[in-house]
Amino acid sequence: MGIIGSTIKPFKATAFQAGKDFFDVTEADIAGKWAVFFFYPADFTFVCPTELEDLGAKYDELQGMGVEVFGVSTDTHFSHKAWHDTSEKIGKLKYAFLGDQLHTLSKNFGVLREEMGLADRATFVVDPDGVIQIMEITCEGVGRNATELTRKIKAAQYVRNNPGQVCPAAWEEGSETLAPSLDLVGKI
Amino acid sequence: MGIIGSTIKPFKATAFQAGKDFFDVTEADIAGKWAVFFFYPADFTFVCPTELEDLGAKYDELQGMGVEVFGVSTDTHFSHKAWHDTSEKIGKLKYAFLGDQLHTLSKNFGVLREEMGLADRATFVVDPDGVIQIMEITCEGVGRNATELTRKIKAAQYVRNNPGQVCPAAWEEGSETLAPSLDLVGKI
Amino acid sequence: MGIIGSTIKPFKATAFQAGKDFFDVTEADIAGKWAVFFFYPADFTFVCPTELEDLGAKYDELQGMGVEVFGVSTDTHFSHKAWHDTSEKIGKLKYAFLGDQLHTLSKNFGVLREEMGLADRATFVVDPDGVIQIMEITCEGVGRNATELTRKIKAAQYVRNNPGQVCPAAWEEGSETLAPSLDLVGKI
Amino acid sequence: MGIIGSTIKPFKATAFQAGKDFFDVTEADIAGKWAVFFFYPADFTFVCPTELEDLGAKYDELQGMGVEVFGVSTDTHFSHKAWHDTSEKIGKLKYAFLGDQLHTLSKNFGVLREEMGLADRATFVVDPDGVIQIMEITCEGVGRNATELTRKIKAAQYVRNNPGQVCPAAWEEGSETLAPSLDLVGKI
Amino acid sequence: MGIIGSTIKPFKATAFQAGKDFFDVTEADIAGKWAVFFFYPADFTFVCPTELEDLGAKYDELQGMGVEVFGVSTDTHFSHKAWHDTSEKIGKLKYAFLGDQLHTLSKNFGVLREEMGLADRATFVVDPDGVIQIMEITCEGVGRNATELTRKIKAAQYVRNNPGQVCPAAWEEGSETLAPSLDLVGKI
Amino acid sequence: MGIIGSTIKPFKATAFQAGKDFFDVTEADIAGKWAVFFFYPADFTFVCPTELEDLGAKYDELQGMGVEVFGVSTDTHFSHKAWHDTSEKIGKLKYAFLGDQLHTLSKNFGVLREEMGLADRATFVVDPDGVIQIMEITCEGVGRNATELTRKIKAAQYVRNNPGQVCPAAWEEGSETLAPSLDLVGKI
Amino acid sequence: MGIIGSTIKPFKATAFQAGKDFFDVTEADIAGKWAVFFFYPADFTFVCPTELEDLGAKYDELQGMGVEVFGVSTDTHFSHKAWHDTSEKIGKLKYAFLGDQLHTLSKNFGVLREEMGLADRATFVVDPDGVIQIMEITCEGVGRNATELTRKIKAAQYVRNNPGQVCPAAWEEGSETLAPSLDLVGKI
Amino acid sequence: MGIIGSTIKPFKATAFQAGKDFFDVTEADIAGKWAVFFFYPADFTFVCPTELEDLGAKYDELQGMGVEVFGVSTDTHFSHKAWHDTSEKIGKLKYAFLGDQLHTLSKNFGVLREEMGLADRATFVVDPDGVIQIMEITCEGVGRNATELTRKIKAAQYVRNNPGQVCPAAWEEGSETLAPSLDLVGKI
Amino acid sequence: MGIIGSTIKPFKATAFQAGKDFFDVTEADIAGKWAVFFFYPADFTFVCPTELEDLGAKYDELQGMGVEVFGVSTDTHFSHKAWHDTSEKIGKLKYAFLGDQLHTLSKNFGVLREEMGLADRATFVVDPDGVIQIMEITCEGVGRNATELTRKIKAAQYVRNNPGQVCPAAWEEGSETLAPSLDLVGKI
Amino acid sequence: MGIIGSTIKPFKATAFQAGKDFFDVTEADIAGKWAVFFFYPADFTFVCPTELEDLGAKYDELQGMGVEVFGVSTDTHFSHKAWHDTSEKIGKLKYAFLGDQLHTLSKNFGVLREEMGLADRATFVVDPDGVIQIMEITCEGVGRNATELTRKIKAAQYVRNNPGQVCPAAWEEGSETLAPSLDLVGKI
Repeated sequence: MGIIGSTIKPFKATAFQAGKDFFDVTEADIAGKWAVFFFYPADFTFVCPTELEDLGAKYDELQGMGVEVFGVSTDTHFSHKAWHDTSEKIGKLKYAFLGDQLHTLSKNFGVLREEMGLADRATFVVDPDGVIQIMEITCEGVGRNATELTRKIKAAQYVRNNPGQVCPAAWEEGSETLAPSLDLVGKI
Repeated sequence: MGIIGSTIKPFKATAFQAGKDFFDVTEADIAGKWAVFFFYPADFTFVCPTELEDLGAKYDELQGMGVEVFGVSTDTHFSHKAWHDTSEKIGKLKYAFLGDQLHTLSKNFGVLREEMGLADRATFVVDPDGVIQIMEITCEGVGRNATELTRKIKAAQYVRNNPGQVCPAAWEEGSETLAPSLDLVGKI
Repeated sequence: MGIIGSTIKPFKATAFQAGKDFFDVTEADIAGKWAVFFFYPADFTFVCPTELEDLGAKYDELQGMGVEVFGVSTDTHFSHKAWHDTSEKIGKLKYAFLGDQLHTLSKNFGVLREEMGLADRATFVVDPDGVIQIMEITCEGVGRNATELTRKIKAAQYVRNNPGQVCPAAWEEGSETLAPSLDLVGKI
Repeated sequence: MGIIGSTIKPFKATAFQAGKDFFDVTEADIAGKWAVFFFYPADFTFVCPTELEDLGAKYDELQGMGVEVFGVSTDTHFSHKAWHDTSEKIGKLKYAFLGDQLHTLSKNFGVLREEMGLADRATFVVDPDGVIQIMEITCEGVGRNATELTRKIKAAQYVRNNPGQVCPAAWEEGSETLAPSLDLVGKI
Repeated sequence: MGIIGSTIKPFKATAFQAGKDFFDVTEADIAGKWAVFFFYPADFTFVCPTELEDLGAKYDELQGMGVEVFGVSTDTHFSHKAWHDTSEKIGKLKYAFLGDQLHTLSKNFGVLREEMGLADRATFVVDPDGVIQIMEITCEGVGRNATELTRKIKAAQYVRNNPGQVCPAAWEEGSETLAPSLDLVGKI
Repeated sequence: MGIIGSTIKPFKATAFQAGKDFFDVTEADIAGKWAVFFFYPADFTFVCPTELEDLGAKYDELQGMGVEVFGVSTDTHFSHKAWHDTSEKIGKLKYAFLGDQLHTLSKNFGVLREEMGLADRATFVVDPDGVIQIMEITCEGVGRNATELTRKIKAAQYVRNNPGQVCPAAWEEGSETLAPSLDLVGKI
Repeated sequence: MGIIGSTIKPFKATAFQAGKDFFDVTEADIAGKWAVFFFYPADFTFVCPTELEDLGAKYDELQGMGVEVFGVSTDTHFSHKAWHDTSEKIGKLKYAFLGDQLHTLSKNFGVLREEMGLADRATFVVDPDGVIQIMEITCEGVGRNATELTRKIKAAQYVRNNPGQVCPAAWEEGSETLAPSLDLVGKI
Repeated sequence: MGIIGSTIKPFKATAFQAGKDFFDVTEADIAGKWAVFFFYPADFTFVCPTELEDLGAKYDELQGMGVEVFGVSTDTHFSHKAWHDTSEKIGKLKYAFLGDQLHTLSKNFGVLREEMGLADRATFVVDPDGVIQIMEITCEGVGRNATELTRKIKAAQYVRNNPGQVCPAAWEEGSETLAPSLDLVGKI
Repeated sequence: MGIIGSTIKPFKATAFQAGKDFFDVTEADIAGKWAVFFFYPADFTFVCPTELEDLGAKYDELQGMGVEVFGVSTDTHFSHKAWHDTSEKIGKLKYAFLGDQLHTLSKNFGVLREEMGLADRATFVVDPDGVIQIMEITCEGVGRNATELTRKIKAAQYVRNNPGQVCPAAWEEGSETLAPSLDLVGKI
Repeated sequence: MGIIGSTIKPFKATAFQAGKDFFDVTEADIAGKWAVFFFYPADFTFVCPTELEDLGAKYDELQGMGVEVFGVSTDTHFSHKAWHDTSEKIGKLKYAFLGDQLHTLSKNFGVLREEMGLADRATFVVDPDGVIQIMEITCEGVGRNATELTRKIKAAQYVRNNPGQVCPAAWEEGSETLAPSLDLVGKI
């Protein structure tokens, strides 16, 4: 089976989040919620902070849409806290960071660069049933786009909430959708 | 190894392209070029045509950037031609469609929905060395966005052509890039 | 065990039939009925339509004999519908077409050309117990003959309904049959 | 790979043919010729003689077309001769009978009823390259039709001798054939 | 374990016997009786009929001794009947012939010439417990001797019926037998 | 392959023969000669001496026919000598006895009663090529017959020396033989 | 585990003993008794009789000590009786001889010379629990010594009957023994 | 193969011998000489010293016969030296002691009591070819006898030096020996 | 899992301790107590006694802390006693020595030098739950330090008894300890 | 083989060291030098900094002794640099830190806590041949002691440089050493 449509595997990771004590996160904690797993290679490095910041700018909107956000790298939660405490950009971020020094999440989602012990620049959107609905990976050096990610999550939520409707290419919230039917087969 | 950074596996498929006789395409035919493999579930169905049309609107620009574009489904090249001949939207598309009734490409890229015999809604960008640099998959019902795809390909080409530079999040052609260095570690 | 006398394996396929919504067909749907599985390589191709038309001409007679007829190729039901909608010859056919893009039926009956992902030009007659009684395969380029097929189905039905009787070579409905007995051994 | 398009496996069998001493037949003996292997369950039984006689009526025509004909059962060549010597109908047949008491041919062609040690009622047409082009099996009690067999062999010979031409359904010698081309795709 | 002293394996074969309809024989049918399995290579051949005839001359005596007699070859029961119907010598025989076209009996008794699909010229005597007591095989071209066979069966019956007695070499019915005892060890 | 027609397996055994020192016998020593291997259960026991004496009475005739004779049991050559030295009947025998305490010969010929460590009452005739042509085994208590054995060896020698001739049942030296031909098939 | 201290394996052998009918011996027959298994290569050979006679001279003493004695070779019980009947020295022996033509005992005790089918010149002393306490093997040509064997059995019986006592080197019945204690460690 | 007649396996052990520095011994060091391996459970224990002393009394005689003597236990050479230095009895011994804390020798000769990590009370005599000729094991508490050991070594040397002669039971140096011949078979 | 934090494996060894009879020690005997396993290569050797003496000087203090101490080598308990009885330094030691001639403990703790059959110079500290908390190994020729060992055991006991406290580097009893908290992360 | 005396396995890790650019370290870089691998659980945590600082205080002395020092945790070199840049204590350290996010070194040395993805608190001393000579591990919460470590390295260097000398327990530089000899065995 492909990754899309598969259910996330069990995991357990210790999280750092600004203003909280360290806490554990498992697959049970996101049951019933939408969640974004936003992997990046390493704390204290480049591109990543711009992506993390870009995502941070959408955090309130995503929270409003009922979406949990997790930054994930193979660093420890100690390292995540230290980065947060010492970096101006990271210090502003309000979402949680998972310590994946065990490589469990990176392997579960198939994005561990095994020869380096670091994760890919990869994003996964998981629905309230724990099923992966959207994913994206870009190579080293190419930043992602939180606006496009938000657009796609909205489309996925729309489709989930409106059975029988599908969103055309580059659909934006509020635009028209399509209702597939036998008559449309071979007619578009 | 993850999919990003891996080399595409050998394949052979018969293609239909408007104005040409049927022809075979293999991995050798794209060596030295950038290529987009744009998978979709089935000819004559929904969403797909809007995505294929959206991609069609970028085809000239992508051609200009040196990028080959292939639509791929598990239908035959006969079916691709028939769809082209009978659909107004598809009839305008100038890029090639590969017949993957053998499921080779869908399996090679890991996007076969095995219980259905159809491909995922998945996009892969391959560089001139045959290495996958960018990928994306969305669930059924959520349309992709050719504009965002083009943005990412431009960033990947920029990074390839400018060693030592990386593109920040949501980078657009012409914007600033970053040059990583030891001094920047822990400083952004 | 040979194919003749074997019971058909379980399958599930989505069917297109003129004037109906798409529907699923399984081995359970033909239990208690005679059925013809009429495989051909691909929608929108040659020879095939002449064979499908030739079979179509016998459809009412076969229906009258209690025989279900299924055209089968590795195309999807979407493609079957599109062919029906756009081809004059195919558009007239009233029997159902099964989408075998999963290759299940083609493999079950042993007629998948594995290097092509297409089915052979093969016919199978299944009795009300799900047992294959008659089969035939011809090479690419040689059309089958629905009249001969009908003759053989009639003979098989006669033998099933008249235990102790057998039909001689080239038997036609209404001709004499043979009743084997010990005395006939070595006497014909 | 399916049976159609496969090359016959090596075999060696002792043959009886009227007016000759016993002789061995192997796959080498039919190289370069068309050949029919006409399997039946047992010497001295029913239906079989009517089929063998029906085929005998076509023997001169098939010889004229360059086709070798072999009756095959799991009886010995001694038995074949005895049947020929004692049966009026079989006594008139001029083609050869192969003794398959080793079950080699029946297994090679997949038509041994293993629980009985007898062959199916099966016909195979082999081309001059040793490749099986046409096959047919009917259940016990249903006689085959040598006229239809001859029609199909003629079509197969036509296709072999006229590359680029295919024979439509129920084609008879002299009728029109089709020449497939890209333009015909989706047009018949 | 050697063949002598072993119990016969299960089998099922269709028999022809003059004046009866075809009937099945299994190991259960000979339980409680002495039985001779008299294998020969093929119906309609040489030596064999002289041996079968020689055995036929002893049939009434063997019947009187409570011994069932079965001729066995890898021919079918149809062939056995045809031979009986057409051969003067065979036509006179009153014992049953088993059709071993499945090779079951020939393999069970270890006398199948595997490269020929024919049985050896072999005789087995089975006691009422299904245990093989006497066996003999001769090469092609050397006829057996039913008189000697009868002598050995009588000796075996004598030994079974007179525990504590053994028959010396070349013993004939009515001659003296030996009663082994400790005192005889090393004294004969 | 059956035992008849098979080549004897290599062996090495120490022999006792009256008037000679102990000597080794291998398969090489009988190459080019006919040989009889006459197995019996044990030295110093019953039946056996009558059989060995019965065979002894034929020894000169068999020697004249070019046939080597070996008595074989699982006793040692020491035991064979002791029996010879102490038994009146055995003391007269002139043929060699092989010590098979290793069970090699008994296993090679398939006549070891494994639960007892003793050989069956079995006879094998080997031709000058080392091929077994005739065999016989009888149960405990039934004596063999050296006269019948001699008859069969003569028939086997006749067949070997007269290609194209076969000996009918119960054939005696000087009687008529048969010359098989196609015309005889089904005629005897 | 070594041989000393191991329990003898199950066996069954037929024994000859002067003045008795043949009888079977198993491991159950020696339970609760001391037993000597005295292996030798073959009946009717050299050295062996001197050893067997030497042991015979100790038989009454061993019987008085409650020790069963068994001579064992790979000869049969028939052969043992014949040797006893014909040899002056062996004829005087009163202990039993086991027929080990099955090689079971020789293998159980690890003394079969596999390339010869004969046993080593080996002695084993088994205690009333079936446990081997003493063993000895000498090469071909070196005779054992029944006096030394008797000395060792006495020492073993003494040790079994006097827990806490051990017998020093070359101990003779009636000599002093040692009582091990912590104080003696490192003091002798 | 049994232990007698087998060649000793390679080993390497560090030896202590009075008046020498520690030195290594391997199988190469005893090639061409007779050797005794005299195993015992442990340094500083009971029985053992009496046996070692008993053997010590024969050491000069054995040396004179060309026999090397090795005491062996699973203690180290350090422990052997310490025992020698502190025990009056052991301190007088002139032969070498091997440290077998690796268990190599004890396993090679099959005398390791695996549940204790100690060797059996076992003696092995090895000839100049490295072949084991004599062995003996006694249970815990039963002392061996160096006089009997010396007697057996003399017999083995006599047999080796006088081919064709064998030593009867309890043979003493200078006594008569036997010369086996065919005539003696069954005569002793 | 690493050695630290793992539970000790089951073992059984015979111990020598001054003033006691030999006694067995198993893992059950140390349950609920702290224990030191102090491995060394061999009795009667160098370095070792200085280390054993150095440890002896701490024995009363360790006993007072509730810590059992075991010296362990692959020598037997007999050898341990002999060393104790003959060495002035070892004779003063009051702790127990385990005989590990079976190599069980050396293998359990992974410190057997397999090519020598001797243990490493290794120390393990086991807590009352049987869990290894501290370990150390030094090469041949480098002596350990019982004072440092005692310091570390005190720290481990302190940490076990004061949850939430940790001991800094080179901590000595009575010095300050640390109480980790979130606020300290990245602050020391 | 135990860890002591084993050669370190190949590795490659990126190092951070104050005042240098990131650089790779492999086993080749320490060939010919003494090296200390000083593992600790994680950057930014407790105890660790006190141990790292304690080791830092010995760094000049160790450098003077020709010893390379490496701190190792499963954090990245980015994290090591960040810790160095932000912690007062760590910021003063002059030795290198290896990034072991791949877990290679932690696994090579057997100190990965697999359920946590963190290393043990473990020290290894490697000699110029790459052979591990000294090791130590303590549980969580117990700090190591750099003074004791330095003492042991000096002893190991002394032993390496002075063959034939060994250092007694708790040896300090300049104290007396021992020269083992045969005479000392059992004398200390």
